[in-house]
Amino acid sequence: MRASRYLIATLKETPADAEIISHQLMLRAGMIRKLAAGLYTWLPMGLRVLRKVERIVREEMDRSGAQELLMSAVQPAELWQESGRWDEYGDELLRIKDRHERDFCYGPTHEEVITDLIRNELKSYKELPANFYQIQTKFRDERRPRFGVMRAREFLMKDAYSFHPDDASLDDMYQVMHDTYCRIFDRLGLDYRPVQADSGAIGGSASHEFHVLADSGEDEITFSSGGRYAANIEKAEALAPTGERPAPTESMTEVDTPGQRTIADISEFLHVDVTRTVKTLVVKSDDEDNPLVALILRGDHELNDVKAEKVDGIAEPLTMATEEEIRAAVGCGTGSIGPVRLPIPVIVDRSAAHLADFVCGANRDDAHLTGVNWERDVRLDRVEDLRNVVAGDPSPDGDGTLEMCRGIEVGHIFKLGRKYSEAMNATVLDENGKSVTLAMGCYGIGVSRIVAAAIEQNHDDRGIIWPGSIAPFNVAIVTLNAHKSPEVMEAAEKLYDQLRQAGFDPFLDDRKERPGVKFADLELMGIPHRVVVSDRGLQAGTFEYKGRQDAEKQDLPVDEVLPFLINTIPVNH
Amino acid sequence: MRASRYLIATLKETPADAEIISHQLMLRAGMIRKLAAGLYTWLPMGLRVLRKVERIVREEMDRSGAQELLMSAVQPAELWQESGRWDEYGDELLRIKDRHERDFCYGPTHEEVITDLIRNELKSYKELPANFYQIQTKFRDERRPRFGVMRAREFLMKDAYSFHPDDASLDDMYQVMHDTYCRIFDRLGLDYRPVQADSGAIGGSASHEFHVLADSGEDEITFSSGGRYAANIEKAEALAPTGERPAPTESMTEVDTPGQRTIADISEFLHVDVTRTVKTLVVKSDDEDNPLVALILRGDHELNDVKAEKVDGIAEPLTMATEEEIRAAVGCGTGSIGPVRLPIPVIVDRSAAHLADFVCGANRDDAHLTGVNWERDVRLDRVEDLRNVVAGDPSPDGDGTLEMCRGIEVGHIFKLGRKYSEAMNATVLDENGKSVTLAMGCYGIGVSRIVAAAIEQNHDDRGIIWPGSIAPFNVAIVTLNAHKSPEVMEAAEKLYDQLRQAGFDPFLDDRKERPGVKFADLELMGIPHRVVVSDRGLQAGTFEYKGRQDAEKQDLPVDEVLPFLINTIPVNH
Repeated sequence: MRASRYLIATLKETPADAEIISHQLMLRAGMIRKLAAGLYTWLPMGLRVLRKVERIVREEMDRSGAQELLMSAVQPAELWQESGRWDEYGDELLRIKDRHERDFCYGPTHEEVITDLIRNELKSYKELPANFYQIQTKFRDERRPRFGVMRAREFLMKDAYSFHPDDASLDDMYQVMHDTYCRIFDRLGLDYRPVQADSGAIGGSASHEFHVLADSGEDEITFSSGGRYAANIEKAEALAPTGERPAPTESMTEVDTPGQRTIADISEFLHVDVTRTVKTLVVKSDDEDNPLVALILRGDHELNDVKAEKVDGIAEPLTMATEEEIRAAVGCGTGSIGPVRLPIPVIVDRSAAHLADFVCGANRDDAHLTGVNWERDVRLDRVEDLRNVVAGDPSPDGDGTLEMCRGIEVGHIFKLGRKYSEAMNATVLDENGKSVTLAMGCYGIGVSRIVAAAIEQNHDDRGIIWPGSIAPFNVAIVTLNAHKSPEVMEAAEKLYDQLRQAGFDPFLDDRKERPGVKFADLELMGIPHRVVVSDRGLQAGTFEYKGRQDAEKQDLPVDEVLPFLINTIPVNH
Repeated sequence: MRASRYLIATLKETPADAEIISHQLMLRAGMIRKLAAGLYTWLPMGLRVLRKVERIVREEMDRSGAQELLMSAVQPAELWQESGRWDEYGDELLRIKDRHERDFCYGPTHEEVITDLIRNELKSYKELPANFYQIQTKFRDERRPRFGVMRAREFLMKDAYSFHPDDASLDDMYQVMHDTYCRIFDRLGLDYRPVQADSGAIGGSASHEFHVLADSGEDEITFSSGGRYAANIEKAEALAPTGERPAPTESMTEVDTPGQRTIADISEFLHVDVTRTVKTLVVKSDDEDNPLVALILRGDHELNDVKAEKVDGIAEPLTMATEEEIRAAVGCGTGSIGPVRLPIPVIVDRSAAHLADFVCGANRDDAHLTGVNWERDVRLDRVEDLRNVVAGDPSPDGDGTLEMCRGIEVGHIFKLGRKYSEAMNATVLDENGKSVTLAMGCYGIGVSRIVAAAIEQNHDDRGIIWPGSIAPFNVAIVTLNAHKSPEVMEAAEKLYDQLRQAGFDPFLDDRKERPGVKFADLELMGIPHRVVVSDRGLQAGTFEYKGRQDAEKQDLPVDEVLPFLINTIPVNH
């Protein structure tokens, strides 16, 4: 491509409403433009990246044996009513009425449509397993779209759905997809990690998320120092501390703590480490007779909502009791509650249950108890895993300790089980001619989100640093003062043609701009390799080469540039 | 691809609601499935065809210098209000409210979005001309969607928009796009014709439609016997007959014609050829004082609505007067009107104006006039081109006579002029630093419709006959009784691998079905070349070859099959 005939829409200033670096750089590098909240135009430069991501995803899905099809984006409400999601899905589902006032939605996902197709088309276990995918524009009506294409309303997604006569077949396919996703993210050149995830509202028995690691990532993930275990923080199990709980050494004493309400206050006021305090959180229960339940955590630990919601007796979604409800039930404010003589049921986190001689609220305003011990001072009926893991916790699989990092979720694989096939009566005949309900898996990749995630992980203060496989162009040829020197343009065009013939995506920057402007644009746009063709260089018989991340440029003899690039740039980059 | 791991969804029966052959065959061959009215799932087999069409369109657009981008399908109402089309567009525009009750639409076209983009991004004539395209899913909320993907509500379209500092630049690009479209349809292997078209509601100064010729086409098109002129029937000019109008030879006589109302009735009753009768059609005028106007055509000619709407004095849209309005104004019914002493203004078609001694209504029920002559019996004030051309008419460019045929519109190129750029204030600075309003062109191709059009043009009673460049697979290798003979499967797989390595798209039909079932499926699906691998053949050292349209199959020595296919199948087919 020649820059003079191409939309180079770089911006000098960082647009005010772009909060994260990928959004800023995609705007500044002329990759995207905002049309409306959560709606973006992919400019030619950005679309090239998107298409390269799409191609890698498609090639690896095809290699896995999945079959590509294309379902319509607009879906009839009837199928969503059949699965029950028309009512469940909430405001993120963009609902549409057509000219005949019939209900449709702009699909955020396609479980219903594919299940409807498969129940009509597949009849026998002999046709299974089968895995169908599409790469398609989807819509999620986010309440507050932001972060550019990282969380757009309209976005490009690869979604796949597999069908199986039994769970063993689903397990096999799940592993195939896990491996396929690893190949995809390997080829994308991203530092990523598959982590165990909670199956959440979509149901099913197992799920993994694929995260691109980046400090700016919205999700917290954890992995074992041994490297074998990884999970997102919602899912990661906090083991009970090993060994016996220490024996009591102090007697329980009530102390006045006027105005001291937070764990930090109490710790400082009483000169006690936060790890020897507990906090008591009151939430709604699912028991009408006992509408509240208290959760006890060590003072320095955080409640894990997803774990708490799964505990028997706790209402879902997790709902904190109000100050008024607590005062009515307990007789004091939230700052002074504790498990001792508490008139509501108590569930204790594993780590809190291992404490001795701890501090907690006295259930009287401005008073706390010290030297409290389980069993001696307060019964210990229920112990559960309620907290987020923290760095240094033992890994749940015994593989060392846990470390924490942040990630951007770009892929998700699920064992759906029979949630949709049961609701929609999708069956085949098994080997014995008996009707069996299909087991299903589903496998998503956020194709447009990957573009933003790649930038969050790969940038510097000059701009984007694309992984070679998804750079919009892999080599830029920059002409200096070409309008004054036909020799420069001739040499540049010769190299350009040679690179095209050798299968590269060269970008000939033949604009009449100052060298500094061109170099800054190319670094902003993240083109991995740069060759400068100038009069001075030609007189010396050289082109100047610089990699996007090189500290120094180097002069190469004209004839050696092509072999050098062929050696430097991997195939398919 | 191996058939045993692929969704072969052929149907024996023709689905009841499929009216046209392409819709029937796409369902029967397992290319598409209906999800809801006008919404289709492209099954793997059909999607392969769609993607091949898409690729050819993309490659040729890229070759033309157009830049691909991707705009969002969902568009904010504000832009459509700015262009004026939010109110004009009618029910085919699928209007959407998001969760915040803001107005959007699912774009049927993108003039507003691209004009908004360009007015923000391009500042100088130096950046022009520029041509941007996308290949994207669009939505048109047809009142009565039918004919499968030929007229679906959700469909895949290539739309391009070009921007120019002046008309000369637009004219050049229009020619580039015309040539690009010819290359595209050539590569698609379709018998097509570019025809002059009316610019219609979209405005602009010139337009051509590209039609795939097929007897089942919805549109009537005409071309000159010399081959240089072609137009759709709306646009094609009917020249005035050459020479002087014949002199009168009869005197005007009123005759009773009880119960004779149609031209056919009168012609038979009076023993006069229909070409010597005229018919008088009364339509609404745009003149409040004279609300009706009469149009006079030769009895065998048909009114051309598009031409009539453009004639000064005729109301747009064209509206026929009711029987009551006619009786109130003229005093007789529609069957007896004529131009002589008619109390409303008259516009005469060129051919009708050339008649002498003709028959027309007498403006009295059950009476007609014979031997009527212009000027002598009735004034001839206004003569216009009002009728559809018919076969045998002289070509407007003098290039022989006109012939008629039917076509399916698959492409359309427009000189839009400044309709959108003026409404939306899209300007650049010209060479003198003066602000100029951009000239625009737009260029559409119905990508999904092409798949259906290709079938309408290319099929027989056994199924689809794909042009090689868009066949889902180009060679089928059929194994006979492979489950009983490892040698058959081995030989088939070897050929399959060889074909893949040679760059073909082979389809290995390794299903355990009877040969007749396999052959019928492959013919239905339209695979162009078939190689049968059987035990009997292997014993003789041969494979059996048959082209989709060959009358006879032929046995080829095993080693000669690959070179034979390489010679037979063009590159990229």
